Amino acid sequence: MEAPLIDVPDGTITTPRGFLAGATAAGIRDDVSGKLDLALLVAEERCAAAAVYTTNRFQGPPLRLTKRHLADGKAQAIIVNAGCANSLTGEQGVRDAQEMAELAAAKAGVAVEDVVVASTGVTGWLIPMDRIRAGVGHLIPTEDGGDGFAHAIMTTDTVAKQAAVRFQHDGVTYTVGGVAKGSGMIHVNMATMLAFLTTDAPVDSAVLSALLRETVDASLNMLTIDGDTSTNDMALLLASGAAGGETIGEGHPALPLLGAALGNVATTLTRKLARDGEGASKLLEVRVDGAASVEDARKAAKAVAGSILLKAAVFGNDPNWGRVLDAVGYCGAEAREERLALSMQEVEVYRDGAPLPFDEDALRQALAHSEVRIRVELGVGEATATAWGCDLTPEYVRINSEYTT
Amino acid sequence: MEAPLIDVPDGTITTPRGFLAGATAAGIRDDVSGKLDLALLVAEERCAAAAVYTTNRFQGPPLRLTKRHLADGKAQAIIVNAGCANSLTGEQGVRDAQEMAELAAAKAGVAVEDVVVASTGVTGWLIPMDRIRAGVGHLIPTEDGGDGFAHAIMTTDTVAKQAAVRFQHDGVTYTVGGVAKGSGMIHVNMATMLAFLTTDAPVDSAVLSALLRETVDASLNMLTIDGDTSTNDMALLLASGAAGGETIGEGHPALPLLGAALGNVATTLTRKLARDGEGASKLLEVRVDGAASVEDARKAAKAVAGSILLKAAVFGNDPNWGRVLDAVGYCGAEAREERLALSMQEVEVYRDGAPLPFDEDALRQALAHSEVRIRVELGVGEATATAWGCDLTPEYVRINSEYTT
Repeated sequence: MEAPLIDVPDGTITTPRGFLAGATAAGIRDDVSGKLDLALLVAEERCAAAAVYTTNRFQGPPLRLTKRHLADGKAQAIIVNAGCANSLTGEQGVRDAQEMAELAAAKAGVAVEDVVVASTGVTGWLIPMDRIRAGVGHLIPTEDGGDGFAHAIMTTDTVAKQAAVRFQHDGVTYTVGGVAKGSGMIHVNMATMLAFLTTDAPVDSAVLSALLRETVDASLNMLTIDGDTSTNDMALLLASGAAGGETIGEGHPALPLLGAALGNVATTLTRKLARDGEGASKLLEVRVDGAASVEDARKAAKAVAGSILLKAAVFGNDPNWGRVLDAVGYCGAEAREERLALSMQEVEVYRDGAPLPFDEDALRQALAHSEVRIRVELGVGEATATAWGCDLTPEYVRINSEYTT
Repeated sequence: MEAPLIDVPDGTITTPRGFLAGATAAGIRDDVSGKLDLALLVAEERCAAAAVYTTNRFQGPPLRLTKRHLADGKAQAIIVNAGCANSLTGEQGVRDAQEMAELAAAKAGVAVEDVVVASTGVTGWLIPMDRIRAGVGHLIPTEDGGDGFAHAIMTTDTVAKQAAVRFQHDGVTYTVGGVAKGSGMIHVNMATMLAFLTTDAPVDSAVLSALLRETVDASLNMLTIDGDTSTNDMALLLASGAAGGETIGEGHPALPLLGAALGNVATTLTRKLARDGEGASKLLEVRVDGAASVEDARKAAKAVAGSILLKAAVFGNDPNWGRVLDAVGYCGAEAREERLALSMQEVEVYRDGAPLPFDEDALRQALAHSEVRIRVELGVGEATATAWGCDLTPEYVRINSEYTT
């Protein structure tokens, strides 16, 4: 869908009207680095809210609390910390998540049941609540606090991931903003990844969940860094309604535009997450065409983007295209070998069941680009999908062999 | 099952009676290294034969030919080359696999339909048939040729993987031998892995397939190096009957002993494959207890052994045990968080839904051992399983970023 979306340079989650944010260095991992690691987002009014969660069986206490608080489709504040995931922490972890919600509610002046709690960092460590308590005291939410929020939720991320777009409908200007974190342990269903989307559009609660699910399925859920999924991940959408105008519900003419705006922000965040994958030197984009169904197209695209053998080859500028088709072969998607086609960086290397001759040196040079595009035709239908990932580098191994040290 | 199995030091696939093997350096990847890369196994008589194959959708021409030739449950020769997988090679690949079978049949003096063809190496390259033709001329199968065969099938393997055991029943001595190759692209269902098992026991065709399936499901299929599965993998079992004695069929008293011998050889090969995983510095053994079913136990053990985050932590001697439970959480196996238990190198770090205090420096030192054992209790049943893998190292990335260069 083509939509007249206007990019907001340096846009954040507080670019949409009605949202304030603040961040502080609470010293959760250590009290010397001065890294922002605790943040609060507050909406001026209660928002329509929807979320999608990790599929991990062991959901962390913050996530379980958030699920309860969002059961009524409303929320007004988000408290997030980095450095400690507060998951697999037993009963103490449950009490700590509850206290975080209470601290945030008191600070923001909202009901405890309208607070979302998110924690990211090392699994299995108890959260240092004394530092959380002290840190909350230093939070000062403001209208331009979105950027601090984005930095505070980072763990091994090397850059903050934010985006915002605007669109107009019937004389009203609406804004969608988003922020995400995550760079390791990211896989296709809400792995150690947090994403918060805000909009000032007034959105009907009934359509909000479906809107978020569709958005995420085509963007954040098509991202894979290392095949792992964590216990704490979520994508959350808050709609403040502060832009005014009619409530956007089922069949409203602005709904497709709002969907496009959310998709745009979420895809931008997804690409930023992929590019900043732990140790990554390249963004990997895999498009699959000719699939029997969207599910199959997604399955194949994710399998290729997630193949660590291919990811290592991409790191080495190695046109080892057999690894692409190998992944297509084991992913379970329907495909016909005699109608397969494959191109890397627009160079076709395989067509109709047989390898094509190609200039290996030229392709090797093309693969040295910071963005590698792979395109596979399955030859059985019309469905298509795109997945994003990154290369696998020695740096990834270094980072993940030293994380808790 | 405890069985009086006698290990045969330096045993090979030609240790069981009735098998000859030969190998040569055919120059398939290059004609300068002198590496053995073409091998032939010949049985003196037609053998009862069974195989299990890769689950990859795009099975290579050698594998498809082998399936046809084994349809009658009989085989007498195996021709294997390393350096080129002859897969995703179109019609030419099919013709090349057929010619390899014909060359082997002529050399060995057996029927073409009794020849198994296996190719391993780079996917998508046409096999240099002129070198295969010349190489077959140099093959001289002998009774002590098993070791050469084991070296010829190696690709990125750094050591040959072989084993043999003996057992006695009713005055007859039976031998089981085995050889395997594979170190990258190995996952749980016959990924780029070849395993050939031989026995001189006379085995009924009807029980041979089940025997191989059970053996492989508990050993080679519990091995994961990098989550990838290739187009060419197989495990093959040949029973020559040269030891004499009664044919071993359903209900025969020697069947459990034969199963134990096969399991012993296959598990030894599996551990050798894991230890020699590409770039690996450590063997990783993951045992899961208390599962609701064997399927669940296997699923959980494989998920933990396959988590690249955990594998990176193991490389770094990092007691980041949250990554173990994280993998258990996303694998889909039934588990109860409040009854989970976890130990690493016999140090218990988690019990009954909460972390335990432990001496981090001591555990770090214990993890520096060349063999890392992880044990997880799921707390829901009685089933158990073990999976094997290895750590993820910067060397793995280096190897796989340069493979075709």
